[in-house]
Amino acid sequence: MQSVWKSDFSIDMDTPKSTRNYYFEDLSVGQHFETDTHTVSEDEIKAFAAAFDPQPFHLDEQLARDTLFGGLAASGWHTAAITMRLLVDLGIPTGGLIGMGGEIAWPRPTRPGDTLRVASEVLEVTPPRSHTDRGTVLIRNRIRNQHDEVVQEFTGRLIVRRRPMTE
Amino acid sequence: MQSVWKSDFSIDMDTPKSTRNYYFEDLSVGQHFETDTHTVSEDEIKAFAAAFDPQPFHLDEQLARDTLFGGLAASGWHTAAITMRLLVDLGIPTGGLIGMGGEIAWPRPTRPGDTLRVASEVLEVTPPRSHTDRGTVLIRNRIRNQHDEVVQEFTGRLIVRRRPMTE
Repeated sequence: MQSVWKSDFSIDMDTPKSTRNYYFEDLSVGQHFETDTHTVSEDEIKAFAAAFDPQPFHLDEQLARDTLFGGLAASGWHTAAITMRLLVDLGIPTGGLIGMGGEIAWPRPTRPGDTLRVASEVLEVTPPRSHTDRGTVLIRNRIRNQHDEVVQEFTGRLIVRRRPMTE
Repeated sequence: MQSVWKSDFSIDMDTPKSTRNYYFEDLSVGQHFETDTHTVSEDEIKAFAAAFDPQPFHLDEQLARDTLFGGLAASGWHTAAITMRLLVDLGIPTGGLIGMGGEIAWPRPTRPGDTLRVASEVLEVTPPRSHTDRGTVLIRNRIRNQHDEVVQEFTGRLIVRRRPMTE
């Protein structure tokens, strides 16, 4: 199923988002997740850029041609934001997808019309210390376009709640 | 000067953005830059979250109270996007602020009403290899709120054009 976002970034808030919830105990090293896809329109690229990254190669096809990108390209932060949305739509750990940070790389730009999807893998799980209700997991998210090319890789540490004792 | 962004992320594109341009040769290790400030409204936080990170603690003050954040907080990717905008408004290297990637951390969340500013420092400069017109710089951006608390740190590598020989 494709997510549909309006170019002004408003969204139908009644759409059901998360279908799955995870506790820390449900995550293990080597686990894989695959999100739905989202096709990025030229309007979306320009709207995001106008707000957050107003550089010529994110705003104007003509001006973009003479730049390093050689054509209109999405802001890397736009690709990161789309990634987040795809992950949230997939289903979130109970307590939320709370990122502490991580390493991000953009090996190539997102282009108008690109259909993106995220593949995640759990790399490490760090159990909660005693008397706390949350552990951390290290997750690698690879975001690929329709040609199977990686447009972003983010390896980040998330805080995840453990299952309450009373359950 | 404060940037003013509408909550639907539209923006007056006639506003002059960049006042300075840099070539690779204009950057050196230890150089500092300081951006203008931007005050983040509750509406902005919710609008960004609705599009890209629709989790309760980014959307609803009431629901956010019982979460790890203890109140409404901006998506980390929203803080990252605001950072990018402040940097672009400051003035950009000729050829653009083209990020290859880097390390990001969010030591604490951005809250409604927070006034953010970015302080950047050039950590490394890597000259262009022969026959290329661009080098890379490693820059650390620290984003602080009005209490001088760091809400984000990003250390990233940028591609920067060198000054054309003919100039």
